[in-house]
Amino acid sequence: MQTATVTVEVPVRKPPVPRNGVDTPAVVETIFGVVAKQPELAKFQFRASNQWMTGTHSRTTMKGFSGAGGEHAHLAEFTADGDHPAVLCGADQGPTPVEWVLHALATCLTAGIANIASVRGVTLHRVESRVEGDIDLQGIFGLSKTVRNGYQNVRISFEIEGDAPPEKLREIVEQSRARSAVYDIITNGIPVAVSVAA
Amino acid sequence: MQTATVTVEVPVRKPPVPRNGVDTPAVVETIFGVVAKQPELAKFQFRASNQWMTGTHSRTTMKGFSGAGGEHAHLAEFTADGDHPAVLCGADQGPTPVEWVLHALATCLTAGIANIASVRGVTLHRVESRVEGDIDLQGIFGLSKTVRNGYQNVRISFEIEGDAPPEKLREIVEQSRARSAVYDIITNGIPVAVSVAA
Repeated sequence: MQTATVTVEVPVRKPPVPRNGVDTPAVVETIFGVVAKQPELAKFQFRASNQWMTGTHSRTTMKGFSGAGGEHAHLAEFTADGDHPAVLCGADQGPTPVEWVLHALATCLTAGIANIASVRGVTLHRVESRVEGDIDLQGIFGLSKTVRNGYQNVRISFEIEGDAPPEKLREIVEQSRARSAVYDIITNGIPVAVSVAA
Repeated sequence: MQTATVTVEVPVRKPPVPRNGVDTPAVVETIFGVVAKQPELAKFQFRASNQWMTGTHSRTTMKGFSGAGGEHAHLAEFTADGDHPAVLCGADQGPTPVEWVLHALATCLTAGIANIASVRGVTLHRVESRVEGDIDLQGIFGLSKTVRNGYQNVRISFEIEGDAPPEKLREIVEQSRARSAVYDIITNGIPVAVSVAA
């Protein structure tokens, strides 16, 4: 058989290097080196404990979680408060529960942006976002049978700067959206079971 | 026409009094005295601003919101962090975004329990809850086309003690669920628009 040597150009992904404060090699190894081969390691359970303080004020503690085949604990025990504002007769000892949803969305998308940019070799200079949610309280007040309890619309707008063309930066945000846990939760809904020991 | 005086017993709801740290008369007046007559006052917009710190760590600020026909500000500017834990290659500078969803749910249901118990004349002694969410990270890692990104299931279990029979306490929790903004958001889903300025 005759053979010939030919030269072809194939795209080579840059090897992952730490970037944007992300340990990119560790992220790539975790996903493709470890979890891809042992999918059961991908099963996580996150937990929170909440205690009523007084009025509409309560406090949540977040510490332990399971995943990657074992139990884990955060470096610190995190606590956070929730309350209703004065205009809704609360003591305003913390953000409202619906503001916490906006926080969850923003932190999820932003973490994804940092990881994805790092894997794609893009150095970020700035990522900021603003989230707004419109809600008609006739729902939770029980004053309407047609108005829903939750937000009617949420908008999140990003400003992003980095060493890449705008189109590539927009693609990073879009990929983060497409792989965001919180975006999925709040756009598609999840089953929630409520139980009571009284 | 002949008339006769008869005595009948009709249920009389107790007049609202402050209870459980809730200004019950103000809650009742806000809902039924004010908003029921001017439904446009029920339109609120909540907001959050998020800034990427480094890696998967970002920080959210929550201060201003609109509603009841005007602009409002929390008594304090609230900030909160989000990050990924060490086992997911993050710096663990805050709870994960998906734990914040659990926090939002618990604070919403608990605030509702306090308000509803107060309106129903029930004094609460203790309300605690534990929330768990199961997630398979094959979704966000892009390792599966069938595993979703978000939680597959969330469970919240309440322990509640108060001056009422267990059945009445359970009804209060159920009414809170039925009127919870965050429960609606995460079980039914809401439209979220993502925009980018790059």
